[in-house]
Amino acid sequence: MKRFIHTPEGVRDIMAVECDKKRYLERRIDKLFRSYGYQSIQTPSMEFFDVFAREVGSIPSRDLYKFFDREGNTLVLRPDFTPSIARAAAMYFNQEEMPLRLSYSGSVFQNNSSYQGRLKESTQMGVELLNDGSVEADAEVIALAVQTMLRAGITEFQVNIGEVNYFQSLVEEALLDEDTIAELKQLLEIKNLFGAQELIEKQNLRKDLSRAISEIPGLFGGAEVLKKAADLTGNERAREAVVRLEKIYELLKFYGCEKYVTFDLSMLSKYSYYTGIIFQGFTYGTGDAVITGGRYDDLLEKFGKKAEAIGFVTQVDSLLNAIDRQKLTLPVKDIKTMLLYPAYLEGLAVRFAADHRKQDMEVACVRFQSGHVLDDYSEYGKRNQFGGIIYFASETEVYAINLATGETEPVDVSRYTEGK
Amino acid sequence: MKRFIHTPEGVRDIMAVECDKKRYLERRIDKLFRSYGYQSIQTPSMEFFDVFAREVGSIPSRDLYKFFDREGNTLVLRPDFTPSIARAAAMYFNQEEMPLRLSYSGSVFQNNSSYQGRLKESTQMGVELLNDGSVEADAEVIALAVQTMLRAGITEFQVNIGEVNYFQSLVEEALLDEDTIAELKQLLEIKNLFGAQELIEKQNLRKDLSRAISEIPGLFGGAEVLKKAADLTGNERAREAVVRLEKIYELLKFYGCEKYVTFDLSMLSKYSYYTGIIFQGFTYGTGDAVITGGRYDDLLEKFGKKAEAIGFVTQVDSLLNAIDRQKLTLPVKDIKTMLLYPAYLEGLAVRFAADHRKQDMEVACVRFQSGHVLDDYSEYGKRNQFGGIIYFASETEVYAINLATGETEPVDVSRYTEGK
Repeated sequence: MKRFIHTPEGVRDIMAVECDKKRYLERRIDKLFRSYGYQSIQTPSMEFFDVFAREVGSIPSRDLYKFFDREGNTLVLRPDFTPSIARAAAMYFNQEEMPLRLSYSGSVFQNNSSYQGRLKESTQMGVELLNDGSVEADAEVIALAVQTMLRAGITEFQVNIGEVNYFQSLVEEALLDEDTIAELKQLLEIKNLFGAQELIEKQNLRKDLSRAISEIPGLFGGAEVLKKAADLTGNERAREAVVRLEKIYELLKFYGCEKYVTFDLSMLSKYSYYTGIIFQGFTYGTGDAVITGGRYDDLLEKFGKKAEAIGFVTQVDSLLNAIDRQKLTLPVKDIKTMLLYPAYLEGLAVRFAADHRKQDMEVACVRFQSGHVLDDYSEYGKRNQFGGIIYFASETEVYAINLATGETEPVDVSRYTEGK
Repeated sequence: MKRFIHTPEGVRDIMAVECDKKRYLERRIDKLFRSYGYQSIQTPSMEFFDVFAREVGSIPSRDLYKFFDREGNTLVLRPDFTPSIARAAAMYFNQEEMPLRLSYSGSVFQNNSSYQGRLKESTQMGVELLNDGSVEADAEVIALAVQTMLRAGITEFQVNIGEVNYFQSLVEEALLDEDTIAELKQLLEIKNLFGAQELIEKQNLRKDLSRAISEIPGLFGGAEVLKKAADLTGNERAREAVVRLEKIYELLKFYGCEKYVTFDLSMLSKYSYYTGIIFQGFTYGTGDAVITGGRYDDLLEKFGKKAEAIGFVTQVDSLLNAIDRQKLTLPVKDIKTMLLYPAYLEGLAVRFAADHRKQDMEVACVRFQSGHVLDDYSEYGKRNQFGGIIYFASETEVYAINLATGETEPVDVSRYTEGK
């Protein structure tokens, strides 16, 4: 039996200070989302397989956890929130045509091969802004992504923004076949610029088009790359994509967020449901993006509602890793108090504790066990995130011990003992 | 595709006011648990099958969601928190011998046949008090269960307390075989008293033993049943079980919780890991127990740590049902504010919103679309839990509209427009 003390590969337990930090961060991000008027929604962990079928454009089927229900349907654990939220909103808000702001928090499950210690169950928090196709919506959601990083205490980060239509319209104009596009995407993804260049040269494209496509990998940087990207092509859809990004950059100035963004016209997403801008947030201390998002104007229609939409998620576990490795502190303090007393004072201790809990204190009742000394309880308190001990040596002799400083001072408990 | 707009059988989406209520209740209960010094722990949704194997004594294997990981191990979605917490604590706190107070919150998954509309994925919140076998620990955990109900705003409820050793010691003394015990348990579970009586009479037991066992179904009520239960038998273990319950009753007076409890010596649990007291909380408006708990002193040893323990969970979804059907109100107010403005005032609106968010307001930016009138936005606001609208008719003409009363008053926004 004992070997099952461990968790399965790719999932883990979270305890003590680490758990406190995670919950604190979740509360802060939740509060930020609500401050922008986003309302909570909960969807089930399991969905019909078809919600994540190939044509939806989420993650590949082989990375899904699949199982059968009693009726013989194939169910999956959600690997990605966006299709679930789209499904639920398409049903519940089918007739609503005005903007909807939804937020959520929970586990996603990806049955990946667990190289690089990537988690198979991880916590995501996200927002989706539906029924709004405007560039102002794009800017709001990106600003919210930036503020999520800031709210987590991270100051050195960047949010890269791309636009799927730039790459897409150029390779379509070049009439590249699907296999070549897939190969090119792969080369771009691993930033193999020479490979990409070589592949493009083999295609015998019109000179300007060949140049534009081979320049894509370099279209990365500040707002200045947008001008360069526009100059490279006469393709109308590609130029519109650039204009969109320019407008977003201008709008982000209203939020004071423009300094955190960079542009990357070579950015690709593993989710093929994106139809417009896509973006990713990066910081030090974690390899993967801690924020991913984008516009998906065609996804809700697959579930029966025509609606433009944009959203993002933040990877809470990765965010916590980054916070840790950057040695940032979250104000999670040892605020619990231990009431330590001989068993015969149970009634007094319970009254004392009840009264202090009403004043928002966190109080644990611990009975002094024979065979132990006070120091044992101080050590125990320090191991278990207690800030202090209130020690009842007797009904009248009571001391408060600060575990951080070791300071001790008497406590008057007469109001709890008189006329009890 | 459209048919997959629905969730699978037995799981559901939660939205709008309902979701706000649920999250509010979760925050309240979490705060209560923390006020007793319980620290958060998170375990994964999936565990090795063996954590819930038959010998652990959780729910039957046929009700588990099972699947394989890439390594070929059988995994299950946790149907019950207690074995997961026991596993994690046995590993992480293996050397800790002093009391540990752990709390948690999350989904559990039971692949039951979905009669009676029972949920297959439901939210539980719970606590476990480890390394403490005392009757004071029993009382603390039951008091916390009572206070969970009170904190949810429920006042008419009862917590029934039983003790598995009473029934167990009598049937063992009677040397009943396993099949007879199983049959008797089934009859007691459905409260078929005649059937139980008949079954016992067939066993040709010693007269006092036969009488004691056949009286068990009637051992239900206030503290007076404890005396009756003790008088029925000379069996030492059975009498000790009763003494334990008497002590708990006395200790609960310290908490002011004794009036909410009743005793039921015929109570059985579907979890066979319980070794001492067991308890269930009931209220109007929901058929199932909203709280279930008990003492399990042997469970952690199965995962490699000898530790006495007691805990309970509350079924958050059932609690919400009860609150709704009892027409109790949770103070979830429409506090969101809609900033409504023509698109050309985006910069002003964003500044205004940012400033108000700093003051803890929840503000959504909505651009006035041509083709709509102000009333359309009032209706939209009421549909989506907005408390009011701040309407920018122009850069200088701004009004606050209270959506509950319809009252309108001018707002001075000059500090946002001057020297912008």
